[in-house]
Amino acid sequence: MAVSEFDVIQRYFQPSRPTRADVHLGIGDDCALLSVPAGQQLAVSIDTLVENVHFLAGCDPEALGHKSLAVNLSDLAAMGAEPAWATLALTLPRVDEMWLSAFAKGFFSLAGRYGVALVGGDTTQGPLSITVQVHGFVAPDRALRRDGAKFGDLIAVTGSLGDAGLALLTDYHRHDESEYLKARLERPTPRVDAGLALAGVASAAIDISDGLLADLGHICERSGVGAEIATNQLPLSPAVKEYIKNRADWSLPLTAGDDYELCFTVPAERQLLAENQLRGRGCELTWIGVIDQAPGVRCRNEKGNKLTLGTAGYAHFR
Amino acid sequence: MAVSEFDVIQRYFQPSRPTRADVHLGIGDDCALLSVPAGQQLAVSIDTLVENVHFLAGCDPEALGHKSLAVNLSDLAAMGAEPAWATLALTLPRVDEMWLSAFAKGFFSLAGRYGVALVGGDTTQGPLSITVQVHGFVAPDRALRRDGAKFGDLIAVTGSLGDAGLALLTDYHRHDESEYLKARLERPTPRVDAGLALAGVASAAIDISDGLLADLGHICERSGVGAEIATNQLPLSPAVKEYIKNRADWSLPLTAGDDYELCFTVPAERQLLAENQLRGRGCELTWIGVIDQAPGVRCRNEKGNKLTLGTAGYAHFR
Repeated sequence: MAVSEFDVIQRYFQPSRPTRADVHLGIGDDCALLSVPAGQQLAVSIDTLVENVHFLAGCDPEALGHKSLAVNLSDLAAMGAEPAWATLALTLPRVDEMWLSAFAKGFFSLAGRYGVALVGGDTTQGPLSITVQVHGFVAPDRALRRDGAKFGDLIAVTGSLGDAGLALLTDYHRHDESEYLKARLERPTPRVDAGLALAGVASAAIDISDGLLADLGHICERSGVGAEIATNQLPLSPAVKEYIKNRADWSLPLTAGDDYELCFTVPAERQLLAENQLRGRGCELTWIGVIDQAPGVRCRNEKGNKLTLGTAGYAHFR
Repeated sequence: MAVSEFDVIQRYFQPSRPTRADVHLGIGDDCALLSVPAGQQLAVSIDTLVENVHFLAGCDPEALGHKSLAVNLSDLAAMGAEPAWATLALTLPRVDEMWLSAFAKGFFSLAGRYGVALVGGDTTQGPLSITVQVHGFVAPDRALRRDGAKFGDLIAVTGSLGDAGLALLTDYHRHDESEYLKARLERPTPRVDAGLALAGVASAAIDISDGLLADLGHICERSGVGAEIATNQLPLSPAVKEYIKNRADWSLPLTAGDDYELCFTVPAERQLLAENQLRGRGCELTWIGVIDQAPGVRCRNEKGNKLTLGTAGYAHFR
């Protein structure tokens, strides 16, 4: 790519957007210069989305701009951190101004909602991929780590599970569900407000990017505990409920990723506090199980039967 | 890639390496948790290297691990910041343990030299590319920004110029030069110590990644000044000197990138201070010109002739 073409790209990411008082120097120097508030820790997370691995070629660039920031903000949410800044490393096969304009619109629209300033970036030529790093603040004793779950803690999730997975099964769902499911897959809402409300309340948290069983499994592993969840308690949209009924397959809410809801644990004496904290934050809280001492994550249905993961990827009870 | 294959990858980047007291939580949670020293600003920079754009397929993975961190540390050096942490987003077509082991060796060897802790990362499948973000500290009034150059300031560079560019002309240079030139291209030394020594002394600085004329041009543009440099003052290795003599072409030291030396400006009254500060830092300082008010960057040879950039990319005098 010629230098002049890079100038075009930079035009979309170096705008006269409102910035933040803690950004002393933004895009355009060797480094950005930033201030972390006194007494706060800096929380950082980096994630890459690769074409045809994390998203399909030709997908809506505005949704992609949203999602590339959303999946990172979701990591800050899972830490109970307040979002502050982002950096963006964008690798593009060619300069397509329509694409760049739409991508930037999706990115900055979500950034603006959470007061996030873009403070640095790099644009290179190559196969399409997007790396974003987010930076946020959290008080040392309030961070929602994965390793704090204790025996007897209650397990909860935000929102509903399995929608993004169902969106990918385009042959299955009905047309009247497709807009809802597509939005859940392509424009996930990072649970930033919920994470902030749970900081100092929940004992452990993670965002569900790999599926509930895997991600709750990470909490258990890091905390040295186990978990049992009741599948009849799982929060499900009507579309996912119907899929499970038709297929007798619980894979979607248990193993499908990309929902970007939070899964967290709460000491029993703080159950009401957690409920109060999440009220009015724009997402439901649902209690789905309890932390115990047996290894791994186990699921039971309302009859007490144990879940089995079939070889074909189906999850059913016996 | 299967999850188990990612476990293999993580093994190379999540070792029991010495970490830092300011890393409260490293790799393995939703975010890393970090502390910036009181009174210091956080300097961050992100850069991507893409296969067949920034490096050739099949190049030495250990050198690539070195370079992917070095080009980022060079940005901290150009800001006068003290390196602290790095994050690594690695996109790989396949899991090759030999490659990963060598890449990690190169990366951590350089990281260890500057006390840099790897605090986070992401590994994805796709066409080979490497994104690194570095984080460092600098006192607010000591940062080496690009916009501080003033009329009358002297212009200097560290090390020598054009070696990396000559390394790429493999048909040209002699065998007895090739090891030196290859090391200059593949394993650049980020001028971290020089940058720290110049913080609070130099009025502006940049690292030379795009070539001296372009990068000094960035300083001039951001500072609202111009520059004149004397090509007979440029620090050149014997190999580059001979190339210029044979070809009557000054392109290498003036327009070739990838040297990762620092170019900086110093108020005349601090000339001796700058020289004293750089003594014993492992790289030479050479005065090459002066900041003036005419727009752009101009070059003159020892006869006072003006440099012309030819259509074929050659730089000569007339």
